[in-house]
Amino acid sequence: MNILTSKVEASRANEVDATNIQFGKSYSDHMLVADYIDGVWQTPQIIPYGNISISPATTFIHYGQSIFEGVKAYKNIHGEVAIFRPKDNNKRFNISAERLAMPHVPEEIFVGGMKELVALDSDWVPNQDGCSLYIRPFMFAIDEFIGVKPAEKFRFMIITSPAGQYYNKPTKIYVQDKYVRAFPGGIGFTKAAGNYAACMLPMLEVKALGYDQNLWTDGIEHKYIHEIGTMNVFFVLGDKVVTPDLSGGTILAGVTRDSVIKLLKEKGITVEERPITIDEIREYYYKGELKEAFGTGTAAVIAPIAELYYDGQTLELPPVDEWQISNWVAKHIADIRYGKVEDTHHWMMKVK
Amino acid sequence: MNILTSKVEASRANEVDATNIQFGKSYSDHMLVADYIDGVWQTPQIIPYGNISISPATTFIHYGQSIFEGVKAYKNIHGEVAIFRPKDNNKRFNISAERLAMPHVPEEIFVGGMKELVALDSDWVPNQDGCSLYIRPFMFAIDEFIGVKPAEKFRFMIITSPAGQYYNKPTKIYVQDKYVRAFPGGIGFTKAAGNYAACMLPMLEVKALGYDQNLWTDGIEHKYIHEIGTMNVFFVLGDKVVTPDLSGGTILAGVTRDSVIKLLKEKGITVEERPITIDEIREYYYKGELKEAFGTGTAAVIAPIAELYYDGQTLELPPVDEWQISNWVAKHIADIRYGKVEDTHHWMMKVK
Repeated sequence: MNILTSKVEASRANEVDATNIQFGKSYSDHMLVADYIDGVWQTPQIIPYGNISISPATTFIHYGQSIFEGVKAYKNIHGEVAIFRPKDNNKRFNISAERLAMPHVPEEIFVGGMKELVALDSDWVPNQDGCSLYIRPFMFAIDEFIGVKPAEKFRFMIITSPAGQYYNKPTKIYVQDKYVRAFPGGIGFTKAAGNYAACMLPMLEVKALGYDQNLWTDGIEHKYIHEIGTMNVFFVLGDKVVTPDLSGGTILAGVTRDSVIKLLKEKGITVEERPITIDEIREYYYKGELKEAFGTGTAAVIAPIAELYYDGQTLELPPVDEWQISNWVAKHIADIRYGKVEDTHHWMMKVK
Repeated sequence: MNILTSKVEASRANEVDATNIQFGKSYSDHMLVADYIDGVWQTPQIIPYGNISISPATTFIHYGQSIFEGVKAYKNIHGEVAIFRPKDNNKRFNISAERLAMPHVPEEIFVGGMKELVALDSDWVPNQDGCSLYIRPFMFAIDEFIGVKPAEKFRFMIITSPAGQYYNKPTKIYVQDKYVRAFPGGIGFTKAAGNYAACMLPMLEVKALGYDQNLWTDGIEHKYIHEIGTMNVFFVLGDKVVTPDLSGGTILAGVTRDSVIKLLKEKGITVEERPITIDEIREYYYKGELKEAFGTGTAAVIAPIAELYYDGQTLELPPVDEWQISNWVAKHIADIRYGKVEDTHHWMMKVK
């Protein structure tokens, strides 16, 4: 695929304070833009990062046809820059696109364009341990029409921002039994913009109570566990690892989730993907068998849980430094990303 | 409230073909813009309609904090321009805003700004019967940050577009039993952009089967009726009018819905707001007592239903010209709007 590239005159990469990288504070020199018009993807362009000009009648502002992905690029110990599993994010992006009545973005644009963009802005990829270049692909409907109907024109873009070391202070989690994030027949399994908007108020309410995130449950009984904030969730119950299965269409199929499951199984640990109720978690807790609990996602990778609040009770997890499974898997994923162990799954796609 | 106004040099109002007004094809000369920064609404501005410039990292693109309203202004038979119930749309807008963790828009901006905008662009209000100026107030989050968190800066805007006579061809409705629009604990009662995005694919699928719209049902049993496409729904069962109640938080509290209920009750007709199942509708149908069925909304006002498809069965309604109740209420609302009968409810707010 041909990509038209228009470079900046001078890079802003030196504006980033390498000793204190703040996610989302700076965006790299360039961005990728590709429009879908009359059923055809137009030639993608890599251009200087900057504002876009849109009509106030642009359909996605009003009707929310907008989806995104989160991906990361790393500079490994050999100085090479590589992206973690971009093809898997491309597949998931297209699953979101189908449910939102938007076109697939082909691999040559999504992955090919991403590689070219990251290669061009490789000075923006931090080389400190725990740091990365966060990559944000997104697509939105750009018809200029305020009638309610599926759009016909779309814009796909990629922007990137350096991300610092994520501070893995164990989180305090509130098991949500009032608000509902997702339900069967809805769009919970997609990375649609609207899913996140619906979670802002519940997030504010539990933060005001001293919690970091919601643990979402099903909308019928508020018993079956879905996911945490913007992460998938895992529990170590006795010697088994358990995580909610994806069959209900209410949980995002996390790429980090999939990586964790694959690595744990390879190590010979039993991983069960199945429905889990909060009652089951409580039973294991009172037996002393709730050993570890953590979220997984592109941003935090592995986010340990310090405590779970549910219906008047607080379940406290053991100290994180005693955790065998999640600490191992977190380190192993990091080692793959920074080139310290062999990448047997071919998860790292080198860009240059 | 002070509003800064910057007028166009020459109006484009003559570009509208008065004999063939197409909704959403033209937008009037001016638009209103007001930003919410550091907890304070900045001075609203009325400026020439045109593109806005936003960062690709603007939070609403990614996380969907975006809500809207639909309102209409009419030119009555005395040549006066008046807006239908704008304060009620303001109230509902602020209910949406709260659920989406966005600020209230005060009446002096929402209603006051709307009055001034419509007064300035009054040449854009059509004076043909059945025509109106459609008014679209909307608000979206404008922080430049791609981390998932509630935004702090917001933009409120109003744009307008002339709307022609709505062709009330009775609709063919598909009772949806696979996809779900709204769920208790979710955001179904709001006019959030994301609610509409989730309905695009189901809309395309039923159109491909020859139907105009979905009739949404509850997500648990797919039995309880919610609403139609983007409208509330009413049934005439025997001599009573029945419409789903709003208690579940899954149905939009339509301003047209409210107007219809008030007018019918005044006329002495029994109106029941209560849960309704599709089974009950079928029972009345087979008794010959399903007399009328219609949607209500700002766009169509009253949209008669020709047939309902559910689970292999088609329920055909009697010919619309025989319908007593909906034809009366549609005409009565129109007569209020065009100044042909007294506006006893003070629903029409004159702008000049």
